[in-house]
Amino acid sequence: MHRSVSSQPAALFALDLTGTFAFGLNGALTAVRAARLDVVGVVVLGMITALGGGFLRDVLIGSLPPATLLDWRYYTLAAVGGLIAFALSRHLRRIETPIDVLDAVGLSTFAVIGATTALDAGLDVAPSVLLGVITAVGGGTIRDTLVGRIPSVLSTGLYAVPALVGAALTVATVEAGVYGLPAALGAAAACFLIRVLGLRYGLNAPEPPETRTRGGSRDAGA
Amino acid sequence: MHRSVSSQPAALFALDLTGTFAFGLNGALTAVRAARLDVVGVVVLGMITALGGGFLRDVLIGSLPPATLLDWRYYTLAAVGGLIAFALSRHLRRIETPIDVLDAVGLSTFAVIGATTALDAGLDVAPSVLLGVITAVGGGTIRDTLVGRIPSVLSTGLYAVPALVGAALTVATVEAGVYGLPAALGAAAACFLIRVLGLRYGLNAPEPPETRTRGGSRDAGA
Amino acid sequence: MHRSVSSQPAALFALDLTGTFAFGLNGALTAVRAARLDVVGVVVLGMITALGGGFLRDVLIGSLPPATLLDWRYYTLAAVGGLIAFALSRHLRRIETPIDVLDAVGLSTFAVIGATTALDAGLDVAPSVLLGVITAVGGGTIRDTLVGRIPSVLSTGLYAVPALVGAALTVATVEAGVYGLPAALGAAAACFLIRVLGLRYGLNAPEPPETRTRGGSRDAGA
Repeated sequence: MHRSVSSQPAALFALDLTGTFAFGLNGALTAVRAARLDVVGVVVLGMITALGGGFLRDVLIGSLPPATLLDWRYYTLAAVGGLIAFALSRHLRRIETPIDVLDAVGLSTFAVIGATTALDAGLDVAPSVLLGVITAVGGGTIRDTLVGRIPSVLSTGLYAVPALVGAALTVATVEAGVYGLPAALGAAAACFLIRVLGLRYGLNAPEPPETRTRGGSRDAGA
Repeated sequence: MHRSVSSQPAALFALDLTGTFAFGLNGALTAVRAARLDVVGVVVLGMITALGGGFLRDVLIGSLPPATLLDWRYYTLAAVGGLIAFALSRHLRRIETPIDVLDAVGLSTFAVIGATTALDAGLDVAPSVLLGVITAVGGGTIRDTLVGRIPSVLSTGLYAVPALVGAALTVATVEAGVYGLPAALGAAAACFLIRVLGLRYGLNAPEPPETRTRGGSRDAGA
Repeated sequence: MHRSVSSQPAALFALDLTGTFAFGLNGALTAVRAARLDVVGVVVLGMITALGGGFLRDVLIGSLPPATLLDWRYYTLAAVGGLIAFALSRHLRRIETPIDVLDAVGLSTFAVIGATTALDAGLDVAPSVLLGVITAVGGGTIRDTLVGRIPSVLSTGLYAVPALVGAALTVATVEAGVYGLPAALGAAAACFLIRVLGLRYGLNAPEPPETRTRGGSRDAGA
């Protein structure tokens, strides 16, 4: 039922490396803010944020060892991002917006590549979308769990919804036989825009009726 | 040393789907109560509860992608259970008993199928029992960890002990060469009864001598 | 680029079993102190501490089922360690030092064996060091996460740094073509000494500039 997605376009590969660095940086910054950790803890959490989603995807499709452990650029960029976050955490706070934008690049690229990787592994449409989302949000979820926070993917739709859109558009273009660089960039751009607009305007997915009546989401994710 | 367990009886398959739905529903309901989450978070936690145990089992035996990602009925039922829990969480509270019973069906079936799947993968008796338990309680454990609760499998024997009995009886009947629908249903029924009686009478496994002297288990799992 | 590491020397195997028992015992003791758990929870956490790191390594290199599920001595020793911790938790507190020493034996052996196993699986130098560390600290990290503590590997370098040194020395001797029992024991001894000295003198890895100015590490890992 599925045709093989040809190997990723080179532009996507560059975005993927950018996203890995951004996730390493931002993941480690989040760790610095959430808990007092030494340099080992901060770098480890940066690497987990950057590589964890791909690990989960590659474990679930049985493609082991994970791709990012077989290419030195991935784990090196993840570690460098974490080290920079450790050394410059105070200064990086002043440039939150560019870091958020880089992070959204990572989210978008990971969703697209995660979905195509799952299709290539023979998974059907819905699980491939799911694995795109897991690739995009899995690393941050592991990091949040390790530092004792409710994962942001659970408490705010701002993270999962754009990844879902990006992965679904990707799978749709593959199924329609029109996947390629333009389609990949289009799907990633849709994810990116939703994520950035959501951050800018604080949009949220609906909450269950019960919790709404108890006072809304002000302290969701606390 | 092990003979292959023939493919699961059809009645077990129906129970397995029932359990998947029940775990998705109950897992999402637990998530609604434990933390304020939006629709994405609730459905994700329902799916993790329903599919997580089987994921862990299939990862550990190297049978990837996991079976429940290859059959649309599993992941669809898990998601539908989560969506229903999101939409009707207030009303579902009034019918807790039937939901608990359905949940016990899931626990029992997952323990039996998990154990036979591990035997089929060539594992020995004890690890197969262990994997039966992991299949049954793994999803709820991941969910509890994500929402910041001590997993109930750790704080109350009410969950792990019935799964252990169900998985052990299953492995015993396979080893004795008498596994089949009656044996599977018998093992599942034993698990089911212990779970339901435990819920009804609040039974617990023994605690270590030290914690008993500090005041017992009143706040265990708090 | 990599030559196959010949099968582990017999002395390492004995140390590995010792470490598995020690991790099961110590992991369960930590669990008793951190949360009120019944016998099932305590033994489960002991087994997770003892076997979890190797599970993570074997999952990531795709060597499944994990080695410790295929050899009854590993899972049995892990469970026995947990049971002893459950039964004797109060008395074991008085002999903390010997237990810490046994635990350091486990950390050292797991780092060495984890690194050589990763090299054998075809991983490059840096990921093999990483997997050595994961093997050594992964089980305790899962345990800490399950009982709701910030994992000690994140909050204190005392755990990850010795494992990193042990794994790096191991990989260096394999790359230099001089791996064997003396090299393995030397790498393990380096890890062991750093760990024991760190415990004795309360050494820590550097913290980020920001958190240092907020009052240092007194409550790190709380």
